[in-house]
Amino acid sequence: MSSATTAPMLVALLHGPDRPGLVARVAGWIFEQGGNIIHADQHRDMVSGVFFQRIEWVPSEGAASADTVAFYAFAASIGMQARVISSIHRPRVAIFVSKFDHCLHDLVLRWKSGEYTCDVVAIISNHRELESIAQGYGIPFHHIPVTAATKAESEAAQLALLRSLDVELVILARYMQVLSDDFLKEFSRSVINIHHSFLPAFAGGKPYHQAAERGVKLIGATAHYATAVLDDGPIIQQDVTRVTHRHGVEDLVRKGRDLEKIVLAQAVRWHLESRVLVYGNKTVVFD
Amino acid sequence: MSSATTAPMLVALLHGPDRPGLVARVAGWIFEQGGNIIHADQHRDMVSGVFFQRIEWVPSEGAASADTVAFYAFAASIGMQARVISSIHRPRVAIFVSKFDHCLHDLVLRWKSGEYTCDVVAIISNHRELESIAQGYGIPFHHIPVTAATKAESEAAQLALLRSLDVELVILARYMQVLSDDFLKEFSRSVINIHHSFLPAFAGGKPYHQAAERGVKLIGATAHYATAVLDDGPIIQQDVTRVTHRHGVEDLVRKGRDLEKIVLAQAVRWHLESRVLVYGNKTVVFD
Amino acid sequence: MSSATTAPMLVALLHGPDRPGLVARVAGWIFEQGGNIIHADQHRDMVSGVFFQRIEWVPSEGAASADTVAFYAFAASIGMQARVISSIHRPRVAIFVSKFDHCLHDLVLRWKSGEYTCDVVAIISNHRELESIAQGYGIPFHHIPVTAATKAESEAAQLALLRSLDVELVILARYMQVLSDDFLKEFSRSVINIHHSFLPAFAGGKPYHQAAERGVKLIGATAHYATAVLDDGPIIQQDVTRVTHRHGVEDLVRKGRDLEKIVLAQAVRWHLESRVLVYGNKTVVFD
Amino acid sequence: MSSATTAPMLVALLHGPDRPGLVARVAGWIFEQGGNIIHADQHRDMVSGVFFQRIEWVPSEGAASADTVAFYAFAASIGMQARVISSIHRPRVAIFVSKFDHCLHDLVLRWKSGEYTCDVVAIISNHRELESIAQGYGIPFHHIPVTAATKAESEAAQLALLRSLDVELVILARYMQVLSDDFLKEFSRSVINIHHSFLPAFAGGKPYHQAAERGVKLIGATAHYATAVLDDGPIIQQDVTRVTHRHGVEDLVRKGRDLEKIVLAQAVRWHLESRVLVYGNKTVVFD
Repeated sequence: MSSATTAPMLVALLHGPDRPGLVARVAGWIFEQGGNIIHADQHRDMVSGVFFQRIEWVPSEGAASADTVAFYAFAASIGMQARVISSIHRPRVAIFVSKFDHCLHDLVLRWKSGEYTCDVVAIISNHRELESIAQGYGIPFHHIPVTAATKAESEAAQLALLRSLDVELVILARYMQVLSDDFLKEFSRSVINIHHSFLPAFAGGKPYHQAAERGVKLIGATAHYATAVLDDGPIIQQDVTRVTHRHGVEDLVRKGRDLEKIVLAQAVRWHLESRVLVYGNKTVVFD
Repeated sequence: MSSATTAPMLVALLHGPDRPGLVARVAGWIFEQGGNIIHADQHRDMVSGVFFQRIEWVPSEGAASADTVAFYAFAASIGMQARVISSIHRPRVAIFVSKFDHCLHDLVLRWKSGEYTCDVVAIISNHRELESIAQGYGIPFHHIPVTAATKAESEAAQLALLRSLDVELVILARYMQVLSDDFLKEFSRSVINIHHSFLPAFAGGKPYHQAAERGVKLIGATAHYATAVLDDGPIIQQDVTRVTHRHGVEDLVRKGRDLEKIVLAQAVRWHLESRVLVYGNKTVVFD
Repeated sequence: MSSATTAPMLVALLHGPDRPGLVARVAGWIFEQGGNIIHADQHRDMVSGVFFQRIEWVPSEGAASADTVAFYAFAASIGMQARVISSIHRPRVAIFVSKFDHCLHDLVLRWKSGEYTCDVVAIISNHRELESIAQGYGIPFHHIPVTAATKAESEAAQLALLRSLDVELVILARYMQVLSDDFLKEFSRSVINIHHSFLPAFAGGKPYHQAAERGVKLIGATAHYATAVLDDGPIIQQDVTRVTHRHGVEDLVRKGRDLEKIVLAQAVRWHLESRVLVYGNKTVVFD
Repeated sequence: MSSATTAPMLVALLHGPDRPGLVARVAGWIFEQGGNIIHADQHRDMVSGVFFQRIEWVPSEGAASADTVAFYAFAASIGMQARVISSIHRPRVAIFVSKFDHCLHDLVLRWKSGEYTCDVVAIISNHRELESIAQGYGIPFHHIPVTAATKAESEAAQLALLRSLDVELVILARYMQVLSDDFLKEFSRSVINIHHSFLPAFAGGKPYHQAAERGVKLIGATAHYATAVLDDGPIIQQDVTRVTHRHGVEDLVRKGRDLEKIVLAQAVRWHLESRVLVYGNKTVVFD
């Protein structure tokens, strides 16, 4: 969403048990520190009684760091879990790829055009096919082959690299390997995957073949956080496009590429703007 | 949006010049009266510096009326224009029709199924074709013919009827007459119209013919508040559907009927839920 | 699709093993009988080598019956399975319902407005809730209760009724009972069902609850021919609409109603216009 | 659309006054030459009585050139205007740009990935900003400045270049200059433009500003053949995306970029696959 101001802002995502007065207390706290709220969006899950909020404010001059620290204490005092991010923070991002290049091009071009506030610090692949593309964009390329036999070793190498680069976000841009539960636990930061179907339909391998086989009239793509259960993590974004009997599997693949790009790009954008709050196996997206 | 609670709520729509602390002050005021905020949504127009808010709360028991009165004073004290509506208020609605029945059926069936909190108290038409439908639904039907020569007289009759029925909302459900500027000023309450094109394209008469003539690949429908300038009022909702060279004008008319129903129904729903704030010639829809 | 002509037309749907010259032979045959082709659409499944065609023509005056008979013989001579339907044939239709009325209203109103070439001859229900609606529309209502103990008996009664009314198409308009394999075999004509999810996701019961549980960002509806395997028949039409974390199950139900109506209405329309050709577990829709 | 076969095919686009037997005669002619029809799609404009057809066939071995020549004569003999294209013909394409790079990247990456059968032989710009991108892709870049004073001269230089390169298709990929009527007449081949609005709404300059001003709820993009009247040529493809009051002009610009890319890419694809037939100021797209 548009913002004419360029002053650094703070964004807080918080959630916890609902009770009267939460909106007033959070807004009041910010006002007391001299901050000015730019956007605030809250949601109350009527079934579970959980309160969710995303709030974005301009802190008083020079107070961003102190406000950040103080907000965590304040949130705890009202029983909320919180995360506070500065709008000028540039998370370090690694993109995992295999041989498909469409999502890679799309993400990097958006990043270079200024759509994303982040630093793409590495492209990591189990193949060498996309190395020259990485070089063309001036992004370090790391070839870490993966085989059934060497998977544990390869993941250790990936983790070591991610740690040494202080990567905060991994994007699986049609990376054709499943990350192990251990990898995800060890990394412990966000991993966004794009699956080329409308989940939960057609989880697992070859979803376009499955779709053609079933004769569906729409194909989809789903961006989600990766979890230990394959294709089952919290969904961030989904979209579909119409197909007919005239479209063979190769047409689904071609049409799907556009879907995958758009859906992954949107999910990454929301994540980088701190608009996504995960709870349970679902997301609240403050759009 | 879902609400498990059935306690009456108050909804306030407010707007005015932005300044620091508004969110905190409004939330604080409600908290002080013992109210519990259920939803709050605000927007700041960065270009004009205007602050917009929709806030929904459960007042403390028995305080709904007093809170409503007090809120107007409070809003004025912070420089805001406000409107406060109780969630149990049932506005009285009149539907204007001519000969097309699809939007009429759609609106009435939604109303009867409980989608709308309102009372449909009259169906008003310049023709008699839909009288039996009105009777079938048990809604009073009023035949007020309109000709070029008698237009002023007819509008006077319509206004007298609306006043006698205390109608708060008029829905033009494919009513094929233009309401005069005088009528709109006199009525001074909301009039929602459905135009069968994606405005501002194809304003005026025979939009499907215009669309077929121009060879567009999508046709649309637009629900808007009626103003003195034909098809130029604040837009509430729009949607489109794909057409091809295979679709003649009669196909556009048929496909358009579904669009018109969905778009008008959504606009009416938002209006009745106090989600639409008009400013200038635009709307803010708190969806 | 639009047709300015009102002369009765013949529509043939044919499919069989592809070989050179099929388009020419079919078109040539029609031309030889003095027919004039209005539309023709063919498709070749590149994987299976099957040829599919829908062809619509105005037969020479008075030749419709003779052409129909002769076409079957001609199609067999070129190795094609065929079905020929006159555009003025009005199939007799029964609508099965339980307690939800939205799809029923929608179908009947479209039928009454002239969108469908058919005769709705019966509304059949396992409950009495919608009886007065049927009466309001002047359509015979048949109450055939179904319990686990009496299911076989109830289906026998339904079949007897359908036979006595010479019903050619059954529409399950949110009918909340599963038809047995035996019923479908016995009836042996088309049964169109609307399932309130984007199949194959969320087959079976309570799909909106399943969707809310999984946290999907789009909900869907699927119209398909009923087969012995629940929610697994050939898909005719699907569509989706966007939902967010703000939508509880009751909102999904409400939004889903509009989807269900549109998707079922479109599938019925295509079926009645002889645009749907089933092969294997898929459909070719000549739109 | 999928094609498992890799034999060169011929595609004919034809149109002319409808009369009985046309489908049979065309199919019969192809069959007589030993060709095998792979796809055929025809349309009859009921209002104007014009017949349109796209037909795709595998000619008998070695007969492609002879068939092409003969088809023109045959089409003339049945009163049809025709165009015949070989599926292996690679038209030479020039892309015109100014300073925006998103459509350029998108088109070139699709071309490099094999989506388009053509040769991109030049990128022509009135500015130098995108020169390094052209070089990165290895495509010759031509800088031809345009000012009000030198427009005629600049267009002469552009035309000379296009002729020397034997360019068959010009794509205006957000080229911010209007081509003169003289240029279009002289060039006499196809020019595809992308306009960043849902035409005919918001023709002319700054359409996103116009859209924000009017408060529309959807923004669009339109790909069309360029003609002497600005933004008024035959429309090939259009699409829209939803916006809200939260989206300022810069958000519309960002969201619009994705629309522009998708809509232009689709129009170019259809054009290159000989799926677009222009008649009057409209197109028939055989999708």
